[in-house]
Amino acid sequence: MNLLRRLDHIAILVADTDRALDVFHRKLGLPLVFSEVLEDQGVRLTHLDMGGTQLQLVQPLRDDIPLAKVLAEKGEGLHHFCFYVEDLNETVNSLKQTGIGCRDAVPRSAPAGKRAVFLRPEDTYGVLIELTSHPDR
Amino acid sequence: MNLLRRLDHIAILVADTDRALDVFHRKLGLPLVFSEVLEDQGVRLTHLDMGGTQLQLVQPLRDDIPLAKVLAEKGEGLHHFCFYVEDLNETVNSLKQTGIGCRDAVPRSAPAGKRAVFLRPEDTYGVLIELTSHPDR
Repeated sequence: MNLLRRLDHIAILVADTDRALDVFHRKLGLPLVFSEVLEDQGVRLTHLDMGGTQLQLVQPLRDDIPLAKVLAEKGEGLHHFCFYVEDLNETVNSLKQTGIGCRDAVPRSAPAGKRAVFLRPEDTYGVLIELTSHPDR
Repeated sequence: MNLLRRLDHIAILVADTDRALDVFHRKLGLPLVFSEVLEDQGVRLTHLDMGGTQLQLVQPLRDDIPLAKVLAEKGEGLHHFCFYVEDLNETVNSLKQTGIGCRDAVPRSAPAGKRAVFLRPEDTYGVLIELTSHPDR
């Protein structure tokens, strides 16, 4: 199986996107790619270019979403990383054969019109890993 | 300033490299690049290919190093990420102008003959970021 060949992004959980941009964009110089609110999920996602892959700043916008609880309990910091895959269903099915399941029953919306699923961290050494692809795949 | 343009690796702190390889290499299918013990630092570093960047498994081999304490207190999981830079000294000096300092007074040895420094996480939004380059740069 050779399915995970492109790192889409690394995600950092932040309480304040502007304050994070002061570090990652203004001081470290990473170019801004986009900043998008996913209303259905209650988050602002901001992407910065790292050369072939991106840094994602994830800011919860509501207190009633699971990410807000993670932020309150564990604080800001590295949260997950995400692979871009050509075929999301095929990859999910292939991983299932190896004993790695999905946390999401159905794919969720992702920035730039993509869709995404999170793998079960219990199956991936406790590390949260996301897979994303374009919606027609 | 356009210095950070290539993500070298993302690092995961692990207690057991073999058990982590079972997930990231055997099940997720990431190709093994190398596994190297840095005796002076008391760690085993194992790199897997993620397409343009790498995943680094960091296993402390001695109880008397700071990483062993981090592992005992915070557990396994995402630890830092690292940019490859052309000129380590120039990058460190440029970042210093923006208020971002180094945790290491002098560069440490890194895998494959490179050298590296960690930035002060207090200056980078609490996220641990490493810079690496070849030794003559």
